[in-house]
Amino acid sequence: MPEHLPETMRASVLIKQGSLVVEERPVPRPAADEVLVKVASVGVCGSDVHYFKEGRIGDFVVDRPLVLGHEAAGTIVAVGAGVPADRIGRRVSIEPQHPSSTSPQTLSGRYNLCPHMRFYATPPVDGAFAEYVTIQSHFAFDVPDSVTDDAAALMEPLSVGIAAARKAEITAGSRVLIAGAGPIGILAAQAARAFGATEIIVSDLDDRRREQALKYGATSTLNPRTDDVAGLGLEVDAFLECSGATPAVLSGLAALAPAGRMVLIGMGADAVSLPIPAIQNRELVVTGVFRYANTWPTAIDLVRTGRVDLDSMVTGRHGLDEVADALIESTQPTSLKTIVSPGL
Amino acid sequence: MPEHLPETMRASVLIKQGSLVVEERPVPRPAADEVLVKVASVGVCGSDVHYFKEGRIGDFVVDRPLVLGHEAAGTIVAVGAGVPADRIGRRVSIEPQHPSSTSPQTLSGRYNLCPHMRFYATPPVDGAFAEYVTIQSHFAFDVPDSVTDDAAALMEPLSVGIAAARKAEITAGSRVLIAGAGPIGILAAQAARAFGATEIIVSDLDDRRREQALKYGATSTLNPRTDDVAGLGLEVDAFLECSGATPAVLSGLAALAPAGRMVLIGMGADAVSLPIPAIQNRELVVTGVFRYANTWPTAIDLVRTGRVDLDSMVTGRHGLDEVADALIESTQPTSLKTIVSPGL
Amino acid sequence: MPEHLPETMRASVLIKQGSLVVEERPVPRPAADEVLVKVASVGVCGSDVHYFKEGRIGDFVVDRPLVLGHEAAGTIVAVGAGVPADRIGRRVSIEPQHPSSTSPQTLSGRYNLCPHMRFYATPPVDGAFAEYVTIQSHFAFDVPDSVTDDAAALMEPLSVGIAAARKAEITAGSRVLIAGAGPIGILAAQAARAFGATEIIVSDLDDRRREQALKYGATSTLNPRTDDVAGLGLEVDAFLECSGATPAVLSGLAALAPAGRMVLIGMGADAVSLPIPAIQNRELVVTGVFRYANTWPTAIDLVRTGRVDLDSMVTGRHGLDEVADALIESTQPTSLKTIVSPGL
Amino acid sequence: MPEHLPETMRASVLIKQGSLVVEERPVPRPAADEVLVKVASVGVCGSDVHYFKEGRIGDFVVDRPLVLGHEAAGTIVAVGAGVPADRIGRRVSIEPQHPSSTSPQTLSGRYNLCPHMRFYATPPVDGAFAEYVTIQSHFAFDVPDSVTDDAAALMEPLSVGIAAARKAEITAGSRVLIAGAGPIGILAAQAARAFGATEIIVSDLDDRRREQALKYGATSTLNPRTDDVAGLGLEVDAFLECSGATPAVLSGLAALAPAGRMVLIGMGADAVSLPIPAIQNRELVVTGVFRYANTWPTAIDLVRTGRVDLDSMVTGRHGLDEVADALIESTQPTSLKTIVSPGL
Repeated sequence: MPEHLPETMRASVLIKQGSLVVEERPVPRPAADEVLVKVASVGVCGSDVHYFKEGRIGDFVVDRPLVLGHEAAGTIVAVGAGVPADRIGRRVSIEPQHPSSTSPQTLSGRYNLCPHMRFYATPPVDGAFAEYVTIQSHFAFDVPDSVTDDAAALMEPLSVGIAAARKAEITAGSRVLIAGAGPIGILAAQAARAFGATEIIVSDLDDRRREQALKYGATSTLNPRTDDVAGLGLEVDAFLECSGATPAVLSGLAALAPAGRMVLIGMGADAVSLPIPAIQNRELVVTGVFRYANTWPTAIDLVRTGRVDLDSMVTGRHGLDEVADALIESTQPTSLKTIVSPGL
Repeated sequence: MPEHLPETMRASVLIKQGSLVVEERPVPRPAADEVLVKVASVGVCGSDVHYFKEGRIGDFVVDRPLVLGHEAAGTIVAVGAGVPADRIGRRVSIEPQHPSSTSPQTLSGRYNLCPHMRFYATPPVDGAFAEYVTIQSHFAFDVPDSVTDDAAALMEPLSVGIAAARKAEITAGSRVLIAGAGPIGILAAQAARAFGATEIIVSDLDDRRREQALKYGATSTLNPRTDDVAGLGLEVDAFLECSGATPAVLSGLAALAPAGRMVLIGMGADAVSLPIPAIQNRELVVTGVFRYANTWPTAIDLVRTGRVDLDSMVTGRHGLDEVADALIESTQPTSLKTIVSPGL
Repeated sequence: MPEHLPETMRASVLIKQGSLVVEERPVPRPAADEVLVKVASVGVCGSDVHYFKEGRIGDFVVDRPLVLGHEAAGTIVAVGAGVPADRIGRRVSIEPQHPSSTSPQTLSGRYNLCPHMRFYATPPVDGAFAEYVTIQSHFAFDVPDSVTDDAAALMEPLSVGIAAARKAEITAGSRVLIAGAGPIGILAAQAARAFGATEIIVSDLDDRRREQALKYGATSTLNPRTDDVAGLGLEVDAFLECSGATPAVLSGLAALAPAGRMVLIGMGADAVSLPIPAIQNRELVVTGVFRYANTWPTAIDLVRTGRVDLDSMVTGRHGLDEVADALIESTQPTSLKTIVSPGL
Repeated sequence: MPEHLPETMRASVLIKQGSLVVEERPVPRPAADEVLVKVASVGVCGSDVHYFKEGRIGDFVVDRPLVLGHEAAGTIVAVGAGVPADRIGRRVSIEPQHPSSTSPQTLSGRYNLCPHMRFYATPPVDGAFAEYVTIQSHFAFDVPDSVTDDAAALMEPLSVGIAAARKAEITAGSRVLIAGAGPIGILAAQAARAFGATEIIVSDLDDRRREQALKYGATSTLNPRTDDVAGLGLEVDAFLECSGATPAVLSGLAALAPAGRMVLIGMGADAVSLPIPAIQNRELVVTGVFRYANTWPTAIDLVRTGRVDLDSMVTGRHGLDEVADALIESTQPTSLKTIVSPGL
């Protein structure tokens, strides 16, 4: 550990449901294959809010103090024994996963499905609302100078959009429906556009969000309160469900062309009653994304070349002392992406 | 029309729900691209029974007399103006569809999803419980002498199994779960075996059917009444749902490995409440088959080479006068495939 | 045939190698499934030039008078008996193929590989350097008003680029090398960009062509005379060979990353000596495109939405009397696409 | 290291081209993620012979002593610090690779293409003609009692056949041509059969080998000296080139149906002059296999269930002192697989 590094750091810790405190904690030491990153920007995700408010997501329960935040970027300040020293000083975007390298899922290229996954801000693994974090060196991706810290942090939610576009097999000329124009819906729209979709229809109940979607790739919008999404005969090739709303799942499924694909991204009801004959008679494909694998190089390329715009999505910024404010702010309809900057 | 052919023929006609009569009808004349087939064997399918008993399947309503039967084989006895005369005399298996040749789905190789499809025994198109039928020449596939008329007829339900195995991406070494050991389940098991699956687990409530499944490719069986299919940790690559039973859908989905594929084949509830987080967290794929496309050459090859055994699946045979008996018999648990032989 | 249509039309006919004459010919009559199109624009293709200069391409020999031209657009002026009359008046882009609708290749969605294909301007089938042509109705695609006649005609060579991008599996973030910055290379670059490629390296010996490539999607260029394409360590995901030059084939193959894909588009040597160990050790994929299938809707969408620019590629225009001039002009390095407008 | 293990072991070492000696060497110590395997059976591969005779394969030069042999099986006798002790005693088949776990190729599921690969018996990495070897624990696959040591060793060459069948996209009903009926050709034929191919045509110059192929899945054979492989109109879906002979490459390519796939497996000429127009006009796919990835579970399943027979392929067996004899014997046409048993 370089001598110039401090012994301790500040970290925002969820000590119990609804209660965040800033603690002084030891700066973590990178393992042999890891780097230590001084955190510059961390995006706030709906799952952070969910852990904060509910103390759990499904089977993952916050039963001891947990640092939230998993959309992170910063600068490498130290490296583990097995990592070349010249990585120190690099600005990096963090892919916040740590799968086993030997599970069959990992060996098959689907490391996101590895049963031994350790993931930032998922109990019992701490996340990035802190001054320093460690990550395996190969999951700290260099970003060019033209990419800001915020954009580098937001490669993470963009990766969800990329993973979804791949599952949906979006390509040049695809017709795509996206339900929900929140941050994930907007990133899904940007990903769909970057994959070549020429028709991107975004549905959302909120007027402002629909308006905003048009700036990020949507070619038209629908208001599910007044438009009959299921009955319009859209016949889209792909439906990216980013709202978690059961009616959206059903109307989107109905809007698919034969052999169309629905990708479930949004979190909502534990179960949805799906029309089996519709899936059969049109040979629809229903699937979902669980995080992402092998998306970072693509995400960085899309941002670097201006195909995707992340910076303008930032609508708020807070320091480590204000993480609770950041979490609450991120749930406002006027918010798109809230950033926590540990250096503020 | 060759002179030696009769002017009329016998056909079993569903005149209304539950009522079948044998009528004397004109022998159909093949259009320019069609052949006329003297029917030798027709398999009875669950959909025939459904039309007979209920008078409808979903939106397809029997509102005028209809000839049932779509699993058919026979001998070409006449050809349309555009078909080479040397096809006369050929023993053929009939693929009972007539899609538009110009729809985008057809041009993309998915002619089964063509919106202009005309299909045997689906209102208002007559089927094959008759002495003669017409079909486009290229959908009358030559069968070698070693393939019986019954086997030639049963290429149709085998095609469903082949289409399902393709959708499920079954390959050498696949682990497969099949729910339901009725005729389609048995054919799905045979298809899975022919595609290289090395573990084929078949579940069925009926002892006799489970026993039978072991003769047709199953490597083990489960009784859903006493075995906890969902809880056994099967982690199969593919699940072929052939029962239509909602509990089977749910337990099979739970039995899938990450990235596993469920193919919905059986007809059952109009809607099933599916666990969205399970689909997302394991990136499962849910899809269905609607008939088949481009399966006949494969089906014939599999039967010709002994990879699939259709003949031993025949458990009953009736003439045109006994179609109602055939339909009822086919619903008995002791029945596997009932054949209608118009020549009896 | 509507009465207002003339009995005869002018057509530019290749009567023998190197000799074109304008003849008065009967206006063709559309078959039942065809439309009659009054031709507005026809792009000149290298194959037209090849037939003109050499009198043959491979096994296809011009042994009787032939009308060249297969990149065509115009307006429907009459329809066959089976086509709705409301198609009359539609501006359309022509997909100039006529496959059999019943061959296994066609039924599998690869109608371009149908052995019974009849294709415009390929002996003995006449092409579109004429005032009127017929085509099957479903291969005359409506174009919106915003798409010019020239652009509608150039959907054909764009379709080659789209077919190649699909074969190369180009997607968001792909790194692509393209050899040759002639018309096909430029269209391949535009297609690659539309499919999401973020690095598009175009190589060409001609300075002006390299410069031009940068306007059509290339992110950088190489001069194979001074740049060591094979030795630069490009490690591209895809290589689109549009030059037909053997050294380009070899250097592009060497530039592929492991599992990379080379698509052979350009016509050149009948045989190229390929390094087998390189293909094996890096599991490279070598394939080619033969025309296209199911590309028109995508091509029209890409042009309609401005993803691809065809109009600015037009560098010359001639009437039917000047087809020889058009053919010769199209071979000049300053030419990109030459148009024949029968109405001039 | 357990005390009962010896300090040293016997190993057959290639000290220079053509010269093998048995040396006493330290028993290797397993790293934290490795196991130590007492070797029971090692198959002889053509590459072993090549290193022995030529002292190199391509860029891999034997410039210091090297232990050959990479088709190995045995019993785990010790484990590294990170491996559960209950693996000791397990009979295992060894996948003899050691890729980096962090390279993009590995993360994408193609670890065989990892540029940092260390592979048994490939300079400077020692192989398995020795009493003990180490391998990462997850690459030592448990085999059931029903699988012999020899069969466990031969999972390695079977894996090549499996990898090739996957690349060739062989499935139920595929028509396959295989050139070369040596050990790899025989295993390719067995793999093709296990993947569902119903027509497997094997070509070989040697009468005895052709005869033998019929026992291992071939449905017919061709003698390239007397049969015109290219001209027979075979129209196969897949061609597995296992001979390395240039004429076989060319005739096999000609035998492919449109959209057919050639997989180059055999090692032969450094370059082969391929007909570019044929690849283009029929959209053929040419690719190769470099070892394998994710094949062992499939290989073991296929052998366990009797789909593939490895034991009967063993035609000779030698101890460590007779490795040179084994290598020479393996090149005889009467040999199929020669085994080195270090315990003999």
